[in-house]
Amino acid sequence: MPVGTQGSVKSLLPSDLAAIHTQCVLANAYHLALRPGAHVIERLGGLHRFTGWGGPMLTDSGGFQVFSLKRLRHVDDRGVSIVSHLDGRCRRFSPRSVIRLQERLGADLIMPLDVCMGYRSERPEAELALERTHAWALQATRAHSRSDQWLLAIVQGGMEADLRVQAARALAAERFPGYAIGGLSVGEPFSTTERLITLCVAELQDDRPRYLMGVGEPEQMLASVSRGIDLFDCVLPTRLGRTGHAYTSRGRVNLGRAAAGQDREPLDPTCGCVVCTKYSRAYLHHLVKAAEPLGARLLSLHNVAFLVDLLRQARGQILAGTFQAPSC
Amino acid sequence: MPVGTQGSVKSLLPSDLAAIHTQCVLANAYHLALRPGAHVIERLGGLHRFTGWGGPMLTDSGGFQVFSLKRLRHVDDRGVSIVSHLDGRCRRFSPRSVIRLQERLGADLIMPLDVCMGYRSERPEAELALERTHAWALQATRAHSRSDQWLLAIVQGGMEADLRVQAARALAAERFPGYAIGGLSVGEPFSTTERLITLCVAELQDDRPRYLMGVGEPEQMLASVSRGIDLFDCVLPTRLGRTGHAYTSRGRVNLGRAAAGQDREPLDPTCGCVVCTKYSRAYLHHLVKAAEPLGARLLSLHNVAFLVDLLRQARGQILAGTFQAPSC
Repeated sequence: MPVGTQGSVKSLLPSDLAAIHTQCVLANAYHLALRPGAHVIERLGGLHRFTGWGGPMLTDSGGFQVFSLKRLRHVDDRGVSIVSHLDGRCRRFSPRSVIRLQERLGADLIMPLDVCMGYRSERPEAELALERTHAWALQATRAHSRSDQWLLAIVQGGMEADLRVQAARALAAERFPGYAIGGLSVGEPFSTTERLITLCVAELQDDRPRYLMGVGEPEQMLASVSRGIDLFDCVLPTRLGRTGHAYTSRGRVNLGRAAAGQDREPLDPTCGCVVCTKYSRAYLHHLVKAAEPLGARLLSLHNVAFLVDLLRQARGQILAGTFQAPSC
Repeated sequence: MPVGTQGSVKSLLPSDLAAIHTQCVLANAYHLALRPGAHVIERLGGLHRFTGWGGPMLTDSGGFQVFSLKRLRHVDDRGVSIVSHLDGRCRRFSPRSVIRLQERLGADLIMPLDVCMGYRSERPEAELALERTHAWALQATRAHSRSDQWLLAIVQGGMEADLRVQAARALAAERFPGYAIGGLSVGEPFSTTERLITLCVAELQDDRPRYLMGVGEPEQMLASVSRGIDLFDCVLPTRLGRTGHAYTSRGRVNLGRAAAGQDREPLDPTCGCVVCTKYSRAYLHHLVKAAEPLGARLLSLHNVAFLVDLLRQARGQILAGTFQAPSC
């Protein structure tokens, strides 16, 4: 899922995303609640109509924003108070209000409010976060009323193996339609991520999608697929695109470097996207050096297409029984 | 002609421009000479292949840059020295070198080096500028060797009616394949622009295109068409787009204003472009307020489509004998 935090995948149109076979787009309920406000999107017919994206869409609840905007928040048993980065006003989010918010926004997949933690959190903090996350997931289930939306659960538990197992087992017992694994990729080594994914996946139903939040490195994605992950989101493809970087089948490339300046070859000769079939590295280098907005647009498009294609290929290989994960 | 100064119409792809029936795209030889350099573009197969735009393309010579970067230049009889805004190095451009440069870039329409002046220039300065511009046009003709490119002439003469007439008459005698009228829209009232256009056009052949440089206000464009102008270029549609503004059939609109925030109507209900058929003003307002790059992209696309369509309609009306110019 490419990330359109504010209801727009940066530089890209819904038709661009459809053309590269994007399956699902993510938006952020917290950001949209602050601007333009749920009432605006609801009145305009919901997030699909508002943004023009007709395919599946997921809204994240804002739990990660609570974590990443640490200085601006207060968490207690009943929810979260957070100071808006836009106008400095204090906003209150509860497990119920976040579900109501996402019902108004109208995405297909919605997420409960959860508590994320940093990599180096203490055990008592991890236990408390988990307890709240679990209680909030149950409150979210009770509050959720739209039958055309799936409410997923989020497995938390920090870096503590036993807490992760406990959380996954408890949520699996509630039989959610799908499960996210949150609070990873927050600074820990990937070997830790992998070990914790494996523990979680073992507890979750095989017939429900499993979504690893916030991972967008190609090798890590494939390694996670081999551990049972089906779904990803990450800002990386568009963020890399805006800073002149691209994924390629031979690793990441910085188009701002002089080496690309006279290179008539495509970004990635094995890629079939419009950027790789129509433009040279030299032109992309020029756009990046000249700070032309088309540079960010073309590199973002290629990067999203690259990850969508990576997972499409992995799916094909899994079905054919030939999938092999890379070693990270 | 939408303007792609650095070889890219800001935010837009060649395929976007083709889809809205753009007939010609402008690039700037001076800017491209500084970055990425003519040798790079030549080696990559010329400007069309480099940028991916297969339709007609015009390169401006850089005369206007000499004018607009006034503090950084020195003009004498044999050409221009200009301090690069990129690296501070002094670059020399002569009437011949600018033709050679544009032959290497490979646009379809190319321009001689000329001398522009500000609105409030003194008569002696206007006379000297005109003398140089004329001498340089003749040198450019002699230097020009590629038969697949048209070298246009540029009519200068500041705000002096008699100098404009003299310049147009002298250039018409040389039978260029087309004529630009330069050095207007530099701060003078539009009534002055109109009067000077009329004087120039009267001297130029009827069967050669006449191009008014740097005008992109819809009413002024139609008024200029009624005075005999065929071709325009302007940064305005994309610059307005980047600052949240749009042309509409009811005048210019600022999408950043709160009034658009809950407006489910399209930008311009009479416009058939993809922006007006798929998006609400409320979504465009949100993109502008959230500084999403898609806002600039969508508004730029609409604005270019609006001007292309404006002239397409004017052409149809001229052929049908129903064209009426607005009063500006």
